[in-house]
Amino acid sequence: MFEIKIDDAKYWKNCIDSIVSLVDEGSFNISKEGISLKAMDPSGISMVYFMAPNKIFSKYNITEKKDKEAAEKESHDSYIGLNLDNLSKILLSSRSGEQLLMKDKENKMALEFIGSNGHRDYTLPLIDVKKSSDNEPKIEFESFIDIKGDFFKSILKDAAQLSTYVGFKAEDDSFIISAKGDAGEVKEEFKVDKDIIQRLEAKKPSSATFNLDYLTRMVNACPSSENISLSMKTDQPIKLSYKIGDAIVSYYLAPYMES
Amino acid sequence: MFEIKIDDAKYWKNCIDSIVSLVDEGSFNISKEGISLKAMDPSGISMVYFMAPNKIFSKYNITEKKDKEAAEKESHDSYIGLNLDNLSKILLSSRSGEQLLMKDKENKMALEFIGSNGHRDYTLPLIDVKKSSDNEPKIEFESFIDIKGDFFKSILKDAAQLSTYVGFKAEDDSFIISAKGDAGEVKEEFKVDKDIIQRLEAKKPSSATFNLDYLTRMVNACPSSENISLSMKTDQPIKLSYKIGDAIVSYYLAPYMES
Amino acid sequence: MFEIKIDDAKYWKNCIDSIVSLVDEGSFNISKEGISLKAMDPSGISMVYFMAPNKIFSKYNITEKKDKEAAEKESHDSYIGLNLDNLSKILLSSRSGEQLLMKDKENKMALEFIGSNGHRDYTLPLIDVKKSSDNEPKIEFESFIDIKGDFFKSILKDAAQLSTYVGFKAEDDSFIISAKGDAGEVKEEFKVDKDIIQRLEAKKPSSATFNLDYLTRMVNACPSSENISLSMKTDQPIKLSYKIGDAIVSYYLAPYMES
Repeated sequence: MFEIKIDDAKYWKNCIDSIVSLVDEGSFNISKEGISLKAMDPSGISMVYFMAPNKIFSKYNITEKKDKEAAEKESHDSYIGLNLDNLSKILLSSRSGEQLLMKDKENKMALEFIGSNGHRDYTLPLIDVKKSSDNEPKIEFESFIDIKGDFFKSILKDAAQLSTYVGFKAEDDSFIISAKGDAGEVKEEFKVDKDIIQRLEAKKPSSATFNLDYLTRMVNACPSSENISLSMKTDQPIKLSYKIGDAIVSYYLAPYMES
Repeated sequence: MFEIKIDDAKYWKNCIDSIVSLVDEGSFNISKEGISLKAMDPSGISMVYFMAPNKIFSKYNITEKKDKEAAEKESHDSYIGLNLDNLSKILLSSRSGEQLLMKDKENKMALEFIGSNGHRDYTLPLIDVKKSSDNEPKIEFESFIDIKGDFFKSILKDAAQLSTYVGFKAEDDSFIISAKGDAGEVKEEFKVDKDIIQRLEAKKPSSATFNLDYLTRMVNACPSSENISLSMKTDQPIKLSYKIGDAIVSYYLAPYMES
Repeated sequence: MFEIKIDDAKYWKNCIDSIVSLVDEGSFNISKEGISLKAMDPSGISMVYFMAPNKIFSKYNITEKKDKEAAEKESHDSYIGLNLDNLSKILLSSRSGEQLLMKDKENKMALEFIGSNGHRDYTLPLIDVKKSSDNEPKIEFESFIDIKGDFFKSILKDAAQLSTYVGFKAEDDSFIISAKGDAGEVKEEFKVDKDIIQRLEAKKPSSATFNLDYLTRMVNACPSSENISLSMKTDQPIKLSYKIGDAIVSYYLAPYMES
């Protein structure tokens, strides 16, 4: 049982968009700490971890389902399986200044948009989401780059003109992006720079190649003022994370291994 | 024989767009009172009634076709059958500040756009438009709602995320909109409110369900500042009308009966 | 061997776009005077002539390939065959304030975008471009019209609503544009006018009909403030030219002969 309110319904849409760009359905874990979701995309090459701490909500009630004794043994967490595409469609209706109240209701999720002129009530069926292995990969990353989100988006867009893959390499004080296709090849080198690259730390040289389509979907929901943090290790999955207000989203993407 | 001038060609395009969103061809009745058109859409589930009073034109000459005696017996009205898609394409060329002169010319319609830099002359073939039953349905409506056009458009857009049909219900002091699909369901309730719902009068409770695609096409040409007037009776066609300047367009749409 | 720099990479993209709208590949001639290209489109009904004088470049080094004696006999010109679609994709990555350095490098073309935050290096393979007959047609034009580029674009757009061909006629002090299709016909007449038609000179009446798709592609890269110069002779190819900064692009288009 939960009853959770967020004062800016449009902001919540941005949060959900960071998930829906990678997966169609998922199971939200509603715990004392906040609302989180872990999911692997259907192809199995990428994962998303989303966490919205309870402080972003103006009301955050979670009541226990069972008697106190049972409750003490068990977790109070609720799991809410949803079709995220449908949730995103519903959130698309958010109007400026509307609040959003979310609660469970007879095996459905109820969403109430509350505006100054009335309210709009949605119900969304709960679904069983097949539990996938969603443990966060344990990688001892060796390189770390913080890059301005908008700039990183434009780099990916340029690389996509030439290829469907992009190579990242962090080495000493350089971050190098490269792509190669029939039409030509490109290589771009960056140094630390207060405007674009705010952190660049390569304990060891780290390089790997990634699918551009996945990367593009991952950066899509990054607010224009935010930085994107990249964590890398040679030929290991990349970790890419950014903040959406006080919520955090992280992605892992397996490297592309040329055969 | 007619020679009619409108000072703002772009405004006339807006008027014609309110018709062309529902029907491809139609027959304009050019009478002393103004230019009107009645048409049923090809599927037969909706009708459009358009009326542009002569006062919106800066020149409005209709000359009699026949000798005076005959003229007295008959109507002086001209009927001008046109492909409205083609008329709309031509009106798309309207440039700011251009006037539009319309007249008949050797079994064609001539349109002359008059700008400060010259004139542009179009001729458009007249066509025979099959006369459909276009008598305005006689319905004793029981509920009346005046709703801000822009807001009504956004409501229809939200409903279209979930369904291809939308339910309207007027009862006491409430106007309720609902839609239901595989993705979930929505219900939104409105009261009278000076910003959005300026009139809400339900002599008897009235409810019916309508095709969203048709409704969307009907509201399409509504200027952003105008109200849309809805007239309803349970399981009867809805009447939807609004003003485009001094012209008026009304639509009827048959209810969707779930089988 | 060449090493050529332009201070505004985005401007160079505009130049290349004027060529790529007509042809997919072409051979640039890099001579002392500047960079030029002549090409016939694959259908053979149109040609493009592009010339960027060396003064638009901030660095313009062409070094001789051979010993001095041979060099004196031969031209110092380089010919650089490129896939222009790919070049255009690369230039799409130009960011505000970036310079572009172009040079040849091991049988490839190197493009280096130099911004305040670093540089981005592209290499583009050279290709063999089949030499087509690209001598400029010798036509003694009889009519000359200078028309504002933006206005000419809007005229072509209006005509395209009715037809795939457009007729131009220059006669005495009039320039007449006409189009005719199933949907209707249009005729627009212009006189000299300081805002739109700045020159209109018809030594003899000149008229011909042209393919609208080709014309539209030809005017596409015309900067919004520039005039387009038309040179005509009855039933002969039209010449259409305009400036992009200090570069000049000219097109020839064969007339459409109704059979």
